[in-house]
Formats: sequence, structure tokens, C-alpha cells
Amino acid sequence: MFISFEGVDGSGKSTQAKLLAQKLIDMGYDVVLTREPGGSIGAEEIRALVLEGDPDRWSAETELLLFTAARRDHLEKTIRPALKAGKIVICDRFADSTRVYQGTTRGDLLARVNALHETMIGVEPDMTILVDIDPKLGLSRAKSRQTVEERFEDFGLEMQIKMRAAFLDLAQAETRFELIDGAQEIDQVFENIIDTVLPRLENAHRSQA
Amino acid sequence: MFISFEGVDGSGKSTQAKLLAQKLIDMGYDVVLTREPGGSIGAEEIRALVLEGDPDRWSAETELLLFTAARRDHLEKTIRPALKAGKIVICDRFADSTRVYQGTTRGDLLARVNALHETMIGVEPDMTILVDIDPKLGLSRAKSRQTVEERFEDFGLEMQIKMRAAFLDLAQAETRFELIDGAQEIDQVFENIIDTVLPRLENAHRSQA
Repeated sequence: MFISFEGVDGSGKSTQAKLLAQKLIDMGYDVVLTREPGGSIGAEEIRALVLEGDPDRWSAETELLLFTAARRDHLEKTIRPALKAGKIVICDRFADSTRVYQGTTRGDLLARVNALHETMIGVEPDMTILVDIDPKLGLSRAKSRQTVEERFEDFGLEMQIKMRAAFLDLAQAETRFELIDGAQEIDQVFENIIDTVLPRLENAHRSQA
Repeated sequence: MFISFEGVDGSGKSTQAKLLAQKLIDMGYDVVLTREPGGSIGAEEIRALVLEGDPDRWSAETELLLFTAARRDHLEKTIRPALKAGKIVICDRFADSTRVYQGTTRGDLLARVNALHETMIGVEPDMTILVDIDPKLGLSRAKSRQTVEERFEDFGLEMQIKMRAAFLDLAQAETRFELIDGAQEIDQVFENIIDTVLPRLENAHRSQA
């Protein structure tokens, strides 16, 4: 089972991905917790190439190609081997982030994002948990963190609002999405995620047996 | 005018590209001599990421994405600005090398090579000089060089024969190709290239005037 977490910055998705991984491990599942961009040795090198240095040194098109290269390596070296070994893969961001980030910041790129995904990746998670939050709240949470996400400051509120809308559009279009209200306390959000994930996980295991 | 040089290893295309650049500069043209993979600051960094380290650390698919990212950066930062400024761009290898190398070493990749080019690059040279040579001669020349091209040894004669055939197929299919016999002495090859390039260059300048 391949589960991705998506959401705007400050939504709490990374915290929730970790909590879910720990919970499933405690329940006896084999779990691989990973993230994008990155998640394999090669993909982390590509991540560093993209995110370090002058943020304008790559165009949106080149960045899209580099992120897709990183995703391909991550898929081959981390995700697929784990799934083949029967493990649960929990991934903090996957292709939906690219659709939303590249597609929102540069609307004319979305067709190319999709074409590239189709040609070179071709895989979707079995379940995508969208941790939804008012971008104002997300922004204030993200800014209060010790380690602010790279280039986070570039976006600003207006862009975060657009990105939230783009995530919600995807969630409506694809049945693999589960929408989770991220504005609540961490424990409550986590409880809602557990209530959503466990039945689907047990179903998946029952249908395999 | 955008001129690319293509050919198997040891064909002498890099030497000829340099000679042509020097000749055109001597004639008073503004010339940018560049190469792939690489040719811009970012693309050279991607080149290093692909070519350094264990040759098997990237799959053919990831490598294709990285080379396409490098090409996109090279196009944006070096080739397009030079062409806009009215310069002649001479490029040692371009997209045909990807078609031939990836398409020959991994036949099933060719459709993806073409799809990726279409989606993310979309540019062909005005003229492509294919320096054609018997791979046996090319191989012996390449091996006698002080600086052997990275990973050259990986290919071997059988693969070079296939690559030559793939280059010749491309040259038959596309009118932008000029076929040059690379088996002759350097000076003679160069003379043939000059005889081919100058009329097309003068034609292009005349039609602009």
C-alpha cells in the first residue's frame, strides 16, 4: 500500500505522516516513511541541486525535469522495492505537489507536468491524504517553525490560497484522496487520519488474503 | 544559425566543431562554440551529477530526464540568447545524440526520448553535420586519445556499429543533416565541412537581408 500526504506549507502533513508511520509500525506493519523531493540517495542529490543556491537559477521547466528525475529515482530505488517486499510506503508529498506547485505558479506548465508524469512516472498512490488548512493558519504555523521549508517565503498568502484550491480540485477529481481537516489539534487530526486509513488498510489486506 | 555536430566516439566531430568555430570567427562571424551534455553553468552541474560516480547509479530513464533537464538549461541560458543576439551557435552533440545513445542502448526508450523532446525542448538545429566513420577506426582513434571520453569503454564495437546505423537513419530522415566522411585526414574533412556550411550560411544571411 502506497500512501501519500499532501497539503500546503504549515498544514502539518509531515508531522502526521510521521505519526502514522509510527502507529503502523507499533501495530506490526512493515513501514517505509519517505519524502519528496528526495527519498533516495540520487534523488536527495538532485533535491540539493534544485533547492540550494540562487532560487532563480533554474527555470520552471528545468526544475520540473529535475524534480521528475528525482521522482523516477525515488520510485525505482525506494518506493517500488518496498512495495514489492510487501511494505507500506508513506510518502510526504508526491506527484500531486508537482501538479499543484508548478501548475499554480506557472499555469501554462500543467499540461507538461501531466505529460511528463504520464511518460516517465505513471504511478499514483493507492491513497492520498490531503491535510487541508486555511492558508493563513498554515502560513503562521510554518513561519513559527525553527526550520522553515526552503524557499517557503517565496510564495506568500495569495499563492498559498491558489495552491489550496488546486489541491481541493484534485481531491474532488480523484477517488484516491481523503480530505482531512488540518485546523484541529494535532491529536484530533491524527485520530481522523487513523479512522480513515485503518479501514482501507484492513480492506486491502483482506482482499490480498 | 544553429549548427550541431554528431557522430560516434572517435569520429573527430569535436575537433571539427572547434575548427569550424575558429574559421567562422576568422571570417568575422560572431560564434558561440558549446557542447552537450553541458554548455551552461547549470547543465555542467547536471552533467557532473550524471557522469561522475558509479555509472550504474542512475537508470536509463532517470539519466534521460537529467540529460533533458541539462539540455533545457543549455537552451535557455546559452543557445537561445546567442541566437537572439544574431550569433552562430555550434554545438558538439545535441538531441540526436540522445536519440541514438538512449534509443540504441535501450530500444524501448526511443518513444519516450521523442515525447520528452517534443514536450520540453522542441527545437532542432538548422543544420546537423554528421561526421560518419567506420566504428572500428573511431574506436582505435578514441582509445589512442589521452583523455578518453567518460564511460566510453562501456560501449564497445558492437554498440558503436548500431549507433552509427542509428545516426545514418536519422540523417536519411531529416533534411537538416549533412553527411561528412570522417575517415579522411583532418584537413580534408574540414575542407568538406567548410564547402558544405559556407553556402548554407551565406544563403541564410542573404535571405535575412
